[in-house]
This record gives sequence, structure tokens and C-alpha cells, in this order.
Amino acid sequence: MTRIVVDAMGSDNYPTPDVEGAVMAAREYGVEITLVGDESKIKPILDSAGGATLPIQIVHAPEMLTMHDKGDDLVMKARHKDAKNSMAVGYDLVKNGEADVFVTAGNTGAAMVTALFRLGRIRGVDRPALAPPFPTANGYCIILDIGANPDCKAENLLQFGIMGSVFAERVRGVKNPRVGLISNGEEAGKGSELVKAAYPLLAGAKLNFIGNVEGKEIFNGSTDVAVTDGFTGNVLLKSTEAVAKLITEKIRETIKNGNLATKFGGMLVRPALGVIRKMLDPSEEGAAPLLGVNGLVFIAHGRSDALAIKSAVRVAKGAVEAKVLDALKSAIEESLKK
Amino acid sequence: MTRIVVDAMGSDNYPTPDVEGAVMAAREYGVEITLVGDESKIKPILDSAGGATLPIQIVHAPEMLTMHDKGDDLVMKARHKDAKNSMAVGYDLVKNGEADVFVTAGNTGAAMVTALFRLGRIRGVDRPALAPPFPTANGYCIILDIGANPDCKAENLLQFGIMGSVFAERVRGVKNPRVGLISNGEEAGKGSELVKAAYPLLAGAKLNFIGNVEGKEIFNGSTDVAVTDGFTGNVLLKSTEAVAKLITEKIRETIKNGNLATKFGGMLVRPALGVIRKMLDPSEEGAAPLLGVNGLVFIAHGRSDALAIKSAVRVAKGAVEAKVLDALKSAIEESLKK
Repeated sequence: MTRIVVDAMGSDNYPTPDVEGAVMAAREYGVEITLVGDESKIKPILDSAGGATLPIQIVHAPEMLTMHDKGDDLVMKARHKDAKNSMAVGYDLVKNGEADVFVTAGNTGAAMVTALFRLGRIRGVDRPALAPPFPTANGYCIILDIGANPDCKAENLLQFGIMGSVFAERVRGVKNPRVGLISNGEEAGKGSELVKAAYPLLAGAKLNFIGNVEGKEIFNGSTDVAVTDGFTGNVLLKSTEAVAKLITEKIRETIKNGNLATKFGGMLVRPALGVIRKMLDPSEEGAAPLLGVNGLVFIAHGRSDALAIKSAVRVAKGAVEAKVLDALKSAIEESLKK
Repeated sequence: MTRIVVDAMGSDNYPTPDVEGAVMAAREYGVEITLVGDESKIKPILDSAGGATLPIQIVHAPEMLTMHDKGDDLVMKARHKDAKNSMAVGYDLVKNGEADVFVTAGNTGAAMVTALFRLGRIRGVDRPALAPPFPTANGYCIILDIGANPDCKAENLLQFGIMGSVFAERVRGVKNPRVGLISNGEEAGKGSELVKAAYPLLAGAKLNFIGNVEGKEIFNGSTDVAVTDGFTGNVLLKSTEAVAKLITEKIRETIKNGNLATKFGGMLVRPALGVIRKMLDPSEEGAAPLLGVNGLVFIAHGRSDALAIKSAVRVAKGAVEAKVLDALKSAIEESLKK
């Protein structure tokens, strides 16, 4: 049975969504769950959600990492041998082989730094990358990195491409995933110095590399993986979210201020507008893998509700079953031979 | 009377939209227009659009720059003293004081390179920047650079901030424009090495600098100007356009495939969906200034129709009347004194 650690202190409204989502997942997916966090807070929610009869255990972790933990302070809490925050305790369970994967909706920065200290990196990976799926016209595109590494070298982008390809194939079931390099122009030779240096590395790797891609190719479904530095990826993520939100609000406002017919029409099409909500709502594909650390880690959105946590557990289970970590290690290992 | 040069060979469907848009603008805004391009192609359209009675003249330029002109070939055509393409001829009219501003819907790269050779740069500006207005919740945000400079230094971003602020104030009528620095996190100290180096320069300049901004701040109207390198700006532009397009298509498709009530509702709310079209449609705010060259230049979208060309002429006229070029020169000059 797949053993999944869920950070009970992760989401913005912790621990209720985290615990309730874990209960739903244990019931639906037949997984074994360990909730890490403050036991006195977890227990009542677990009981009232009907968790008592399911394979769910609590591992007490009295402390937690928050948005306010950063810099040296964060590093200390992340690396200290006896750290008792829910992330450190959770990662250690994975590290020690007591669990297969760690899921958290907590502070992304803290989750990444703590993962680096507790799990370490896969041999041959310089920088782990956060790799969420973006909705497209006909499925999803995995974009990496979206924030872990604001400054990258060409070699980092090559590793991102290899890891993204493995993840798309193993977990998302894409055969021979198309890997694109995000640039300011589709033609080879277009791009920043970084892109120009990364292009030949990706083209020379064992990848289905399709060259430079732009927003058009990402969102119309022409590529399965899109590689970029963490700064550009993060700006892309935040801007597209903001535009989707702006459009929803504008449509809602226009319908609200419209005449009776428009208002009536708005009522009728409300389900159709759901497509935008899906783009904004983390509960659908609620977790991004942190690829390149020596252990499986999924980071869900802070805004996650119970459904989003449940989705995150589902994706995490899939990654364990697909033996993604081994596949990532082999692929990187092979790329080093050349 | 403001004298505006319109590149008749610019738009994807040249010269019809370019000439018809110029005629509409001459009629509506009381400007004097010079159409540059192939006279034998321009003349019949001009006549049938009723341009004969308006202050519109044609300056013959038998050649044109296209998407296929790039590299050394483009540089040669851009710089040659006797170049007879419509951009070179048009810029020379501005350079020689025979016109106040140049408007083109032609190949952006060609327009920028040719501007650099024919007009040169403003003293103190290392890199001119393309600075289009992005629609926001309550107006527009000028983002620069969106493509002219894929690799930037901190000093470039400072100059972009100064030029963006001058343009927002003079042409868009924003008092004391808020200038933000696009980063992967709002807190000061967050960002790539470039952003961290640019931050203190912007903070130390005579600007209403509001610090780092993300997609949220740009699109909810919290900043009037957003500064970034041309690579990130271009990815932001293309990605947000692609997401807006994806959302429109998805809504349309869902309504089309929906039940009778949804289809009926869709008919009723069609005007409300116009807000998305506006985001995708260049005809509204159809031209981006190229800031930092020694002359006024507006570059419109290749997809421009006659209405978009007309809008571009309107914005160009506003820039001339607001004496933007002088204001840019003074602001940059002042920044050099410190």
C-alpha cells in the first residue's frame, strides 16, 4: 500500500482542509496516510471526518514553518537535526524509508529549502525545479522551473528538460513527450544568452526536443513540457493567473451591470464560465512536483481546500506507483555519461 | 498641424488597412498625413477611401522590409544611405524635421533596427524599449521592455523606468505614475540578480517607485508602469495573450456544445464577452511607443485593421502634442547628473 505523508499544517486554513482531504483520499484511493503536525489540533478533525477506521496515523510535530520563516532563520529550522516542524518531520519519514512521498500545501520556499536539507539532491542535478501542470486547449503542459531558481545556467535548463520529460511520460502518461524551450521567438537562434546556450544542450539530449516555444505553443497544446528559468517561469505563472482572474471579474461585472437579458444569459452560461474557474482553482491538479530532490515531494497551493489536498494525494500516489524517482535518477545518470 | 508619417506597407494586409486607417484619422483628428510606400498601390485605395480632399500626401518608397529581413541583410537595408524601403524613407522624414512622428504596423524587429540606424538614440539611453499598454482592471499598465532587449543590465531597467514614467504622465495623463519592477515576489530582495541590482537604482531615481510587482499588481491596476527585461516582458506578453485566447475559445466551445439554455444564454451575454476581445484586439490601443530613439515612433500590431491604424495615429498625435520626446530627453539628462 502506498504510504503518503501529508503536512497537516500546510494550507492557509490548516489543519482542516489538510486533514479532511487526507481522509477523503485514504477512503477513495486506498492509501496509507501519515499526518504530520500538532496532534492536539489534528485529532478532533480526523475523528469528526471519520478517519478513525481508515489507515491514517498521526506523527506529532509541534512546530510549523510559515511565510515568515526566511533567510538564515529558515535555513536553521530546515537543517537542524532535531527540528520539530511538520515539514522536517515529514521529509525525514520519506528519507528514512517510512513513507513514499511527502505532500504539503505549506510555504513553497520553506518546502523547497527543507527538502534540500533533509532529502538532498539526485546525483547530477544541480537545482531542483518546481514543475506544475498548466491547463491547455487539450490537456496540460508541465512548465519548469516556476520559482525555485531565479538565476539559471544552461545546464540547469537541460536537467529541467530531462526531468520534465520523465515526469510527463511516467505520471501523466504522455508518450515521447514534446519538450519546448520558452523563448521570445520560435525560430532557433532567438532568445536570451541563456536560451541560446541551452538550446544545443537540449537538442543534443535524448529528448523529443521541439525547439523554442512561446505562449501560443504552450497554451494551444503544442508542447507537453516547457523549460525555462525560475524567474521567467514564475512571472509567467503569476501573470497568466492574474489575467484569467481579470477576465472572470470583468465578465462577471459586465453581466451584473448589464440589462435584464444579459443578466438572464449570465445565469444560463454560468456553467460554461466554469472553465475559467478551473484555470484558477488549485483543486483540479492541485500539486506540483519538486523534481530533482532525492525523494518524492508534491507542493500544493496554499489556497488548497480538502478537494485540492485529495487531488494532490492522488497525483502523489501515481508518482510513487510509476516509480518516478528511479526513472528520474536513471535519466539524469544517462545524460551524465555522454 | 501635427504631421504624421504612416507606413503604408506595414500591416499584414497592407496597404489597405494602413491607407484607410490614415484617411479615417486625417478626417477625424485633423492631422496632416504622409503615406510612405509604393505609390501605385497606395493611390487607388487613397482615392476610393476619399482621401483626395484631405491633407494626405504620398512619398514613394518602392521597397519594403518584411518578416524575412533579418541579420546582416536587415542591417544593410536599415542603414544604407539610399535605402528605399518604406521604413527608412519614413524615418528620414522624421529625422529631417519634415514630420513629427512615424507610425508603422510592420515587422517589429525591422522597425526597431531601422529606427536605431536612421534616428539614433537619445543621449544617455543605452537601449530603446518597446512599451505597450496592457489592459488592467481599471485602465492600462505600460510594460517595458517587451522584446527589444532580451538581455539587460540594471542600468537599462532604470532607463526603462524613467522613460515609462514620462510616457505614462505625458501621454496617458497619469499623475505621478507608479513604477513597479517585475519580480518573482513582492518583497524587496526577491528576484533574479538583475532585479536585485536594478532595485536600488530605481529606488534612488526621481520616480514614484513602488518596489517589486507581480502579475497581480500589474493586472489589478496597482501600478502604472512595470519594468522588466525584454525577454521576460515578451514571454509575459505572449503568454497572457495566449491565455486570454484559450479562455475565449473554451467558453465559446462550452456554449456551443451546451444545452439549449446555455446556447441561448451565450447569445445574450455575447456583448459581455467583448471584454476579452478587447484584450486580444489591437484596434483599441493599437500602438506601442519605441522609447529611447531620437524621434517619435509607434509600432502597431501586424494584425492591425484600419481602426487600429486610426487608433495608432491618435496616440501618435497625443505624443507629439505632449512633447514627449523633449520630456524624455530632459528626464534622462537629469538622471545622468546624479
